[in-house]
Amino acid sequence: MTSAAAETSHDPRTGLPATTARPTSPEELARTMARAVAAAAGLSRVPPRERARWLYAVAEAVEAARDDLVRLADWETALGDVRLRGELTRTTDQLRFYADEAAAGHYLRVEHDTGDEQVPSMTRVSVPLGPVGVFGASNFPFAFGVLGHDTASALAAGCPVVVKAHPAHLGVSDRLFQIAHSALAAAGAPEGTLGIVHGFETGVALVKHPDLAAVAFTGSQAGGMALWRLANDRPVVIPVFAEMGTVNPVAVTPLGAARSDEVARGLVSSFTLGHGQYCTKPGLVLAPRGEEFAARVAAELVRVAPDPVMLTRRIAESVVSGIEALRGAGATTTVRLGGDGPGWSAPAAVLEVPLGQVKAGSEVLEEVFGAVVVVAEYDSPEQVLDTLAQWPGALAATLVAGPGEDPWAVRWLEALSGRVGRVVLDGWPTGAPLTRAQQHGGPWPATTQPTATSIGARALERFVRPVAYQGFRDELLPPAARRGNPWSLPCRVDGTWTDGGTS
Amino acid sequence: MTSAAAETSHDPRTGLPATTARPTSPEELARTMARAVAAAAGLSRVPPRERARWLYAVAEAVEAARDDLVRLADWETALGDVRLRGELTRTTDQLRFYADEAAAGHYLRVEHDTGDEQVPSMTRVSVPLGPVGVFGASNFPFAFGVLGHDTASALAAGCPVVVKAHPAHLGVSDRLFQIAHSALAAAGAPEGTLGIVHGFETGVALVKHPDLAAVAFTGSQAGGMALWRLANDRPVVIPVFAEMGTVNPVAVTPLGAARSDEVARGLVSSFTLGHGQYCTKPGLVLAPRGEEFAARVAAELVRVAPDPVMLTRRIAESVVSGIEALRGAGATTTVRLGGDGPGWSAPAAVLEVPLGQVKAGSEVLEEVFGAVVVVAEYDSPEQVLDTLAQWPGALAATLVAGPGEDPWAVRWLEALSGRVGRVVLDGWPTGAPLTRAQQHGGPWPATTQPTATSIGARALERFVRPVAYQGFRDELLPPAARRGNPWSLPCRVDGTWTDGGTS
Repeated sequence: MTSAAAETSHDPRTGLPATTARPTSPEELARTMARAVAAAAGLSRVPPRERARWLYAVAEAVEAARDDLVRLADWETALGDVRLRGELTRTTDQLRFYADEAAAGHYLRVEHDTGDEQVPSMTRVSVPLGPVGVFGASNFPFAFGVLGHDTASALAAGCPVVVKAHPAHLGVSDRLFQIAHSALAAAGAPEGTLGIVHGFETGVALVKHPDLAAVAFTGSQAGGMALWRLANDRPVVIPVFAEMGTVNPVAVTPLGAARSDEVARGLVSSFTLGHGQYCTKPGLVLAPRGEEFAARVAAELVRVAPDPVMLTRRIAESVVSGIEALRGAGATTTVRLGGDGPGWSAPAAVLEVPLGQVKAGSEVLEEVFGAVVVVAEYDSPEQVLDTLAQWPGALAATLVAGPGEDPWAVRWLEALSGRVGRVVLDGWPTGAPLTRAQQHGGPWPATTQPTATSIGARALERFVRPVAYQGFRDELLPPAARRGNPWSLPCRVDGTWTDGGTS
Repeated sequence: MTSAAAETSHDPRTGLPATTARPTSPEELARTMARAVAAAAGLSRVPPRERARWLYAVAEAVEAARDDLVRLADWETALGDVRLRGELTRTTDQLRFYADEAAAGHYLRVEHDTGDEQVPSMTRVSVPLGPVGVFGASNFPFAFGVLGHDTASALAAGCPVVVKAHPAHLGVSDRLFQIAHSALAAAGAPEGTLGIVHGFETGVALVKHPDLAAVAFTGSQAGGMALWRLANDRPVVIPVFAEMGTVNPVAVTPLGAARSDEVARGLVSSFTLGHGQYCTKPGLVLAPRGEEFAARVAAELVRVAPDPVMLTRRIAESVVSGIEALRGAGATTTVRLGGDGPGWSAPAAVLEVPLGQVKAGSEVLEEVFGAVVVVAEYDSPEQVLDTLAQWPGALAATLVAGPGEDPWAVRWLEALSGRVGRVVLDGWPTGAPLTRAQQHGGPWPATTQPTATSIGARALERFVRPVAYQGFRDELLPPAARRGNPWSLPCRVDGTWTDGGTS
């Protein structure tokens, strides 16, 4: 793809073109960034409650266009009406969630130290970084799209956003942008609060732009790492919050295996969700030998008989090549279904691999982005600890334990929590719930910033930076930093927490 | 320097050798790292209060050796008895400060969401990263040395530490290590909690070691950037918290200039402190034309008549070359004193530069690590905003304002807080006070992680990473994550803060 080439999204069910977008020119990018810079000061000066109001207005406008948006998204993604309606609701929930978190003010992490004759007073408060470039995901046209988690949390934190539209859903991206842009203007947000650009090379130029302050990305390892390298080559390096696909482990303890059939059903439902196109998809199951777990999962897959249609031609092809790579690394196919339909059809599959092949550097530990799962059987639970010690950083692990005490669950949990950002007990990792305590991220290479999360209350904190004010009097300070607390922010004063409202 | 060459520290007053250290061999590094890895689990499992007890024991042991440590440090640094006694007290204060912060438990940022029939319960708590490599500073043998901020905050957060001893003070580094190592063992900390290595190439090997989880560094731009690049070239990239020298601005408003003589006195006292070897040294003053501010500062410098002796030969030479670079960039010398004494003598100087030369890319905005300050006069306060817009990220800014209302102070403050980690009003930035709300860091290139701080309560948070537990019951969870709260940690429950003690 070059800057001269237009991008085209397709109907995955037929492979026919859907929407075409002209790449943003360098001059248009310059204007978009200039508007974002101009908006930045305005965004940072208003109380978080005011930005919250803007985000509520965007949520309402998106809901008003629900039917059109779902139809357009289904055409470009083939994810289906039910899933897309659910995802759109989730997206407007997200917009309100980050709005509420901004208004609550915890993310500013205000701290006051009174000082004394020896030590000056000190106040620390977080300030927005500035314009953020958002590269949304192919697999969530709404929830990680133009108005997804990254955009909502960056705006909530007071940063203008310039979105690079994903080429897989150009039509829905432009529509979402238009809806939000109008709603923001009507709500009184500065022009330049939200921008959009198209084209691969424009995306590169966006990351290199001297006024960009941070990048948020959801997608493949290759894409995330490329952006991270670009940002590190800038004269002024900026943070890249890249959340990337990994192989998410499922560890079934000997006691947990007592309900293998139920677990197999849950697993199939999870790894085929969205045609397997979830970064949190459970990818590799460690189960006790003797339960014939792979056969149970295969039987359930045959019963469900999914017929995956992938988001893009490239993704469909990579499912096939991914299965081949697994076989090259010693896996055998237990069952493989479909993949011969029209459009971007791809197979669903269950494979089995000897535990000894699950080791650092093996293709077995490379993500296959599709409805594919691998099962490895262990002879003793100690082996699982050795295997987990070699696991690359991943987003989410699943622990299937016995109903009562389960000593192996406790020992494995320590190992699992060292490799992932989230551990799920007796449930499934897909569809990461939107709660304040959510941590959607994990050690390298799951994310480029393992302390960051793209879902949950702390998502806002990616886009701010602390500043300390030493020896100041209130009248010179911005409102968030004043001891008088005109914004009623929660804060820590001389080491003790207070929940705001002291203005 | 190669791995074969021994390192030697010197007496800066004479240039004669002081202490020689053999470089750590690859085998010794492997053993040190193996011990650190073995210690990591033990450190992470004990309650923070237990680690706090260990740090108190270290502080006590350091105090018991105060006279010897100060004598040794003065021999190797020439910083003088008064400064070094103060710094040692500050260092034991720091050890207890981070111990107390660990025990208070805010740094774990525990959050519980109860969930309901639709949404599973979620708990997020931070876990230690693992072994941390600490590269201490030349200019603070105690406060940023073997037992300085980085080591104390990493240990407090539950991470074993391997220190790379600074070649400028090998003797005091080894002595501090021995004292701490014995005190930790006596207090019951695992063997491997603290290690030390010597030699340039061993430092490189430490950063490359697969079991290292993070790097903390205080020092020059060249050193910090080299470590950051090394860490980014690892197969598993790890964070580098590099805090580096920059040109810290001082902005005197027209109203603030009313007390130019007092300001000149304070400035000289600040920029000559520790012979100008502070990363927070005020480096460039923006003052109104007509006050002859450079002449006042020069007169005060002549009155004080400092006679700087630098920490190393290289630093002494770089003061001379730094003054030449400033002159090459259009600065003129108002006064230059000394620099012709024995040992590592270097000049102190005041220079003046036209405001137009203070621009992005100019040598005027490169740090001179010594008792050197530059003055630039403005004709109108608007010009200062233009100048600050070109300022590279710096650690700390100083704002000199009028005593009452000062509209320019408010406008400049917004610009300053966009360029630095800390703004000081009517005071001086050297000697960053140890308070919880302190932020010692700033935008790139002052730090490689602008959201991090190496001083203050949030210093601990550099060395932990959040993990979410979804759908868990208490008995399977580690103590910090239990709703029962056996460690009495402060936490946020369903969005509302509670200050612990609920066990």
